[in-house]
Amino acid sequence: MEYDISREQVENTYIKIKNHIIKTPVIYATKLSNITSFKLRGALSKMMALEPAIIKKGVVAASAGNHSQGVSFAANLLNVPATIVMPKTAPISKINATKNYGVEVILHGDFFDDANKKALEIAKTEDKVFVHAFNDLDVIIGQGTIGIEILEDLKEVDYILVPIGGGGILSGIASYVKAVNPNCKLIGVQSQNVPSYYEARKTNQAFQVQGKLSIADGIAVKQTGDITFSILNKYVDDVILVSEAEIAETILFLFENCKIVAEGAGAVTTAAMLFNKLNVKNKKIVCVLSGGNIDVTTFLNITNRALINQRRRVVLKIDAPLGHGHLTKITNVVDSHGVQIHKISDSQLENSLEVNREIIRLVVDINRKTELANIVIDLEKLGYTVMEKEFINSITK
Amino acid sequence: MEYDISREQVENTYIKIKNHIIKTPVIYATKLSNITSFKLRGALSKMMALEPAIIKKGVVAASAGNHSQGVSFAANLLNVPATIVMPKTAPISKINATKNYGVEVILHGDFFDDANKKALEIAKTEDKVFVHAFNDLDVIIGQGTIGIEILEDLKEVDYILVPIGGGGILSGIASYVKAVNPNCKLIGVQSQNVPSYYEARKTNQAFQVQGKLSIADGIAVKQTGDITFSILNKYVDDVILVSEAEIAETILFLFENCKIVAEGAGAVTTAAMLFNKLNVKNKKIVCVLSGGNIDVTTFLNITNRALINQRRRVVLKIDAPLGHGHLTKITNVVDSHGVQIHKISDSQLENSLEVNREIIRLVVDINRKTELANIVIDLEKLGYTVMEKEFINSITK
Repeated sequence: MEYDISREQVENTYIKIKNHIIKTPVIYATKLSNITSFKLRGALSKMMALEPAIIKKGVVAASAGNHSQGVSFAANLLNVPATIVMPKTAPISKINATKNYGVEVILHGDFFDDANKKALEIAKTEDKVFVHAFNDLDVIIGQGTIGIEILEDLKEVDYILVPIGGGGILSGIASYVKAVNPNCKLIGVQSQNVPSYYEARKTNQAFQVQGKLSIADGIAVKQTGDITFSILNKYVDDVILVSEAEIAETILFLFENCKIVAEGAGAVTTAAMLFNKLNVKNKKIVCVLSGGNIDVTTFLNITNRALINQRRRVVLKIDAPLGHGHLTKITNVVDSHGVQIHKISDSQLENSLEVNREIIRLVVDINRKTELANIVIDLEKLGYTVMEKEFINSITK
Repeated sequence: MEYDISREQVENTYIKIKNHIIKTPVIYATKLSNITSFKLRGALSKMMALEPAIIKKGVVAASAGNHSQGVSFAANLLNVPATIVMPKTAPISKINATKNYGVEVILHGDFFDDANKKALEIAKTEDKVFVHAFNDLDVIIGQGTIGIEILEDLKEVDYILVPIGGGGILSGIASYVKAVNPNCKLIGVQSQNVPSYYEARKTNQAFQVQGKLSIADGIAVKQTGDITFSILNKYVDDVILVSEAEIAETILFLFENCKIVAEGAGAVTTAAMLFNKLNVKNKKIVCVLSGGNIDVTTFLNITNRALINQRRRVVLKIDAPLGHGHLTKITNVVDSHGVQIHKISDSQLENSLEVNREIIRLVVDINRKTELANIVIDLEKLGYTVMEKEFINSITK
């Protein structure tokens, strides 16, 4: 039999269902989409504002990895050489992405601030133009264009949450948005591990915080700039801190629920909402997610950690007699509940056990809490002892 | 000092840099965004086309996991009960997402086709309306609305690549697009493991292929419907197969390069491009990526496999003397090249070695091929033998 549908049928149906579905965007897959468009704004703004003759000798920049790609892209576009200093702790993907632009990359120090110092030296010695990652009015103006796009899409926004590293992106967005819509609240978010602006705001002075390494490497800046500090103080309504564990769980949340790939720095704003740091209801809230440059191996580690934190990946320690058959009986129980065994090992080394017994250790991925409770019941029915019972009970409740 | 930037500065800069940056979309984070909007179209189209009195008793559907969420959402919207049959092999995230709509979920069989048979029985016994996942004109019309959105965004498209399971989405898109732009080529993509339409097209008859389990679970349909078969034959220009390994590498590619979360079924079209299955150049090509519902544990496994396939995660086996100090010397070499050790183990069990030697096994994540070559050179300088050298050499070339 022949079947057919007409153009009109499709168009009429579209009108009927349109309000219930999400419009699918067509995304242009270009090299450009790989780079951090949010940081490119500042670099382009700055470098296009300078006289071509001035930057001809080359530009120097320091960056945790996103600004470096912006400067490199802009340098290629304007046909000038670039030297980029990045901290040694920068993600491999960001280092490689920067190198792939054909610019000179130097690794120095553990934090942005160390790399920045080095970059300033180089600019001075080699008489090149220094393009600061945030503490520069032209850079800030460029980042502010993100504010234009937010208000274009959502005029009535009540809150905008923005990650703060050096504060360039938030300075730019806040300046623009407050000028257009003074009622909109601007909120900065930082990692607890590098609370540079949070602490500076309390003491009303930008100073260098100690800082610990953070999975939000993109905003691991130990000192706010004087320009960004002045602008942030004027326009930002509040600053929120989130923990490393909260960031990790949010990276997983964004992947699973929103199909979004976020790096640590990009996830902090959603983390602030997810863990109820902003005490508001029924408001229109925009979380800026900049950016998505996360090493896949880092993503694997963080996700594993988040699964364990959320007790969806659990270690079961089972006290079993030595002798054949027990391993199969135990894995049979797990299989019968449709639960996946992630890893298995046995050990006769634990010294608290009788000599004729061993511990079988199962790492299982559970789907629902009831599954774990039922596995424990079935194992006990067969005479096995599940160790560290209090912990397991706390999960299954 | 006081610093400030004006609204006009930001707006003028936006005009200058606009063509070089990517407009950042504001995405509404709702429960709706979690579900598979691409399948919702068909379910809504069908269920809104039926008289309310007819579906009042309830609807029954079978699905590998995406259609099930579409039908469940539509059932809640129209306030009718729903029974969903899914194969036991469906991803946990899809099963849980469907259950969370409060509908009845029954797990049956390994493939969509088994679940579909069961669902038909239930619909008959319980006198409910059956909503087929693809072999239904109203469903196909709904899926066709994706074509409207593609042409809205990119009028001049030359090729559209669409995953084929039962063929509903491609039937819909192809019917609409060929009516509006007959020059646009429509290409279907399937997994080698379940080439149902590919084989049917060759023999000009839809039949049930054997089929192996596929990581593209969303299109693991063993038999094309008669309605979709008829429409596909009329409008589809070609069908392409991709392998499981190609799908796995593409899931990683989309994550790393496009920051897109794709499930196996969603990745097949990009896989076709990435592995040069479509022999065209300088054409405007749209790859439909439906969808993004992948279990995070599955993603971890697939990514691990892809890293190994791409030889970015490598096992180094080192023949070392028994005795203290060697482990540290070896890990020192790896560290000095900035390479991360993913896993380490030692073994004295391999029987080909002399009794006073053991094998140290390092799983390392390498960033550039040269790193591995240099590690091998440095280990050999210290007198260690890297085993399976041919394999290592083949990687570093």
